[in-house]
Amino acid sequence: MIKVIQSAFVRLRHKPSFEFFVIAVIIISALEIGAKTYDLNDTTISVMKYLDVFITIFFLFEIVVRFIAEENKKDFFKSGWNIFDTLVVAISLIPINESEMALLARLIRIFRVLRMISIIPELRILINSLMKALPRLGYVVLLMFIIFYIYAAVGSYLFQDINPVLWGNIAISMLTLFRVMTFEDWTDIQYETMEVYPMSWLFYMTFIFFTAFAFLNMVIGIVVGVMEEEHAKERNIGQPSMLEIQQQIAALSKQIEHLGKK
Amino acid sequence: MIKVIQSAFVRLRHKPSFEFFVIAVIIISALEIGAKTYDLNDTTISVMKYLDVFITIFFLFEIVVRFIAEENKKDFFKSGWNIFDTLVVAISLIPINESEMALLARLIRIFRVLRMISIIPELRILINSLMKALPRLGYVVLLMFIIFYIYAAVGSYLFQDINPVLWGNIAISMLTLFRVMTFEDWTDIQYETMEVYPMSWLFYMTFIFFTAFAFLNMVIGIVVGVMEEEHAKERNIGQPSMLEIQQQIAALSKQIEHLGKK
Amino acid sequence: MIKVIQSAFVRLRHKPSFEFFVIAVIIISALEIGAKTYDLNDTTISVMKYLDVFITIFFLFEIVVRFIAEENKKDFFKSGWNIFDTLVVAISLIPINESEMALLARLIRIFRVLRMISIIPELRILINSLMKALPRLGYVVLLMFIIFYIYAAVGSYLFQDINPVLWGNIAISMLTLFRVMTFEDWTDIQYETMEVYPMSWLFYMTFIFFTAFAFLNMVIGIVVGVMEEEHAKERNIGQPSMLEIQQQIAALSKQIEHLGKK
Amino acid sequence: MIKVIQSAFVRLRHKPSFEFFVIAVIIISALEIGAKTYDLNDTTISVMKYLDVFITIFFLFEIVVRFIAEENKKDFFKSGWNIFDTLVVAISLIPINESEMALLARLIRIFRVLRMISIIPELRILINSLMKALPRLGYVVLLMFIIFYIYAAVGSYLFQDINPVLWGNIAISMLTLFRVMTFEDWTDIQYETMEVYPMSWLFYMTFIFFTAFAFLNMVIGIVVGVMEEEHAKERNIGQPSMLEIQQQIAALSKQIEHLGKK
Repeated sequence: MIKVIQSAFVRLRHKPSFEFFVIAVIIISALEIGAKTYDLNDTTISVMKYLDVFITIFFLFEIVVRFIAEENKKDFFKSGWNIFDTLVVAISLIPINESEMALLARLIRIFRVLRMISIIPELRILINSLMKALPRLGYVVLLMFIIFYIYAAVGSYLFQDINPVLWGNIAISMLTLFRVMTFEDWTDIQYETMEVYPMSWLFYMTFIFFTAFAFLNMVIGIVVGVMEEEHAKERNIGQPSMLEIQQQIAALSKQIEHLGKK
Repeated sequence: MIKVIQSAFVRLRHKPSFEFFVIAVIIISALEIGAKTYDLNDTTISVMKYLDVFITIFFLFEIVVRFIAEENKKDFFKSGWNIFDTLVVAISLIPINESEMALLARLIRIFRVLRMISIIPELRILINSLMKALPRLGYVVLLMFIIFYIYAAVGSYLFQDINPVLWGNIAISMLTLFRVMTFEDWTDIQYETMEVYPMSWLFYMTFIFFTAFAFLNMVIGIVVGVMEEEHAKERNIGQPSMLEIQQQIAALSKQIEHLGKK
Repeated sequence: MIKVIQSAFVRLRHKPSFEFFVIAVIIISALEIGAKTYDLNDTTISVMKYLDVFITIFFLFEIVVRFIAEENKKDFFKSGWNIFDTLVVAISLIPINESEMALLARLIRIFRVLRMISIIPELRILINSLMKALPRLGYVVLLMFIIFYIYAAVGSYLFQDINPVLWGNIAISMLTLFRVMTFEDWTDIQYETMEVYPMSWLFYMTFIFFTAFAFLNMVIGIVVGVMEEEHAKERNIGQPSMLEIQQQIAALSKQIEHLGKK
Repeated sequence: MIKVIQSAFVRLRHKPSFEFFVIAVIIISALEIGAKTYDLNDTTISVMKYLDVFITIFFLFEIVVRFIAEENKKDFFKSGWNIFDTLVVAISLIPINESEMALLARLIRIFRVLRMISIIPELRILINSLMKALPRLGYVVLLMFIIFYIYAAVGSYLFQDINPVLWGNIAISMLTLFRVMTFEDWTDIQYETMEVYPMSWLFYMTFIFFTAFAFLNMVIGIVVGVMEEEHAKERNIGQPSMLEIQQQIAALSKQIEHLGKK
């Protein structure tokens, strides 16, 4: 009996029409989320309530189908995407009183849009490749954090009394430095401190140079990493390396030598 | 009789002087469009009216010449550029009452400047290669749109009451987020929301990181794509791959082995 | 007699100490130009007058030395850098009444700093390589100009009455669009026009996308160009191509075949 | 006796637990520096004084351990990182009266955070590779400085009377031009000078183009440099060059020829 249901679910899951329907429901759920940011009349609001219930139930149904269709139940939770989908569905099942915590209920539903990424394989590959690039950047990010921390400490010590809103403590100073890094009205900040410390342009200029250099290094690191991957991919296809060619020719040379001795 | 006209048109079309004259007329038409943005005296305006008629007729003539010069009439509309040129000419033929819809008439004429792209082969190649790069970017753009949509929904839910001009609904919020992405006075927006939600800098910072990362990914995707094309081009010229070299050497080895057996 | 002077000049020109002295004079001339932007006392001003005369005479002397030291007088003017140096010296010889056209006299003297580039070989190579990259970019720049021209015409037609300072005519509009491209307070311009044409954000967004795309294309064009040059350089060193390797192996195969027939 | 201490210190130095403890102390010292930017109560301040003394003594101890553990004392100061660490410790030992020069004492302690870079090998490698990239950029930076200097001189001569705050002398002008390069409210500066010199947009536009071009050149220079390094690395692994392959085949051909003659 269970076997029958399972095989039925497996068939259902692999039907393209089922996948398209899932995507359609995700899009409708996304549109509903967007629509709620507008002022709506009462009819639409009540329609949306029913729509909400339908989407929640359908998502629950879909995750159950995929879970039952899975041969080995343990493998299901080995995929990060399955865990993510289950979490999204589980959270949306928590009964939140709309009138009381309407905002929280709404925010949680927004995560449903992220299911768009888990359902489209190409987006999943994209995210996976982004994730793989992250550890490579780890140390550059750490270096950048150290630069930020040191400059924020210096900035806070020196400029605290000039403008406490911008340099009040090390946390606020780091936010201000992030603003300087994006070049967002940074000269206003600079002119203000230059009135007290005329040489403080050195502070900003060295900071901009260091962060720009670290950022450039990060970009180049990614580019070089991507290219090495491409090279490795080419070799995996079966393209021999120059060294292999050389060894082959050396073997040939021995063969001819052997021929001459006969 | 028709044959005579056709062969005459073919000859006319391939004359370099004819092509230069077409480019000259396009440039004059572009200059006229630019001149109209200035305050002009009555004489110039009336001269321009005649010039307008002349340009419209000449463009019609040129497209007819190219159509008749074409061997196979069906092939003419297979080229996107021909369709584009015909549309531009056709639209400019619609009789629009200058006094009533002067603005629309003027706007339509601006598209004539685009004929500059269709007439110069190098620009056509440039646009074609840009077009080819687009589908490759499709999924990154989709991912970016999802990021924008989610952040716009969150932003609208949270900040709607703080500043309805910036966060009034999801559409306005997306426009505001585009502004944040270009770093255009984004800290003003941030400071405003931080007064109500002190942790809202997390919203902006994560958004900037995600979009910057997706953008970087897009740029690298294009660079890698362009390089793969270059590699492929090199192979098409007749450059053998490492694998072919290896197989050739292996064949040589067999030849020598065969020689030894004799 | 002339021969003696010429050989003396040739010797002088190739002395490293002479070259260092020329660079020193250029640096002094640059410092003098910078110093003049400060309020100076009368003594310094009169000292500078003598310094000015000395620098002018020395530069004249140096160019004469290089001209006479040149074997073939015609070759001297074949180098763009020599023409540039001669022009800078010639212009600075024009007697300009300091009191009357002081500003012009000062501006002309600034060009002497550019001699720094012509005297240091590494900078000359850098500029030459930049110059070589320019024609490659020609058509992208033309495409960008067409985009600017069309958007400036549309912007001027639509927004002229909203803000004539920004959109008064096509020239002013192009300047405004350059501002939009640098993201400099572009949303202020956008919000202003959106009050009249609520959909005008489309105008700005498409413009930003097109220019960003064209700019990206330009950058990638340069990168690919530089890499092709690197590849070509490698081949010029004497590195054979894959095709040559293949042909060599084929020749080897024939040699063995010939051996077998004997 | 000294030998015993030395070997004990060598063992201590290479214990992972010791290294982790050093990193922990550096992090605590960094946190303390950050904490001081907040308003603290008296208890915390007095606790911090003791913490400060402990950190100073521990850092002194750690550098002594590393110095004694070093086989050859001269080698110790050959590493730039050791000199850096010693300097940081030495400076923090200078007795500064907190009440008098509290600010200076605090600023000096910030440099301790930089020890984070010297203690983590990956960050040290990162900094070393950044340092190696610098000389390669030397001439581009010089070229950029010349561009800045010339434009600052022209700007100061022409615009000094329009806005002395921005163009007062060549130093201020260079700061203003750096602001223009970062696109920070640059149009405000432009509009101001365009009222007196309507063509001054040419000044800004050419400046932006030149600096953007020089910057692009710098980025491409780094990318090409990094790639050449990668290629060189590949060859060092033992990958033969195409030329070596060719010579090997040529040697093979001679071998066969020799075989035929027998």
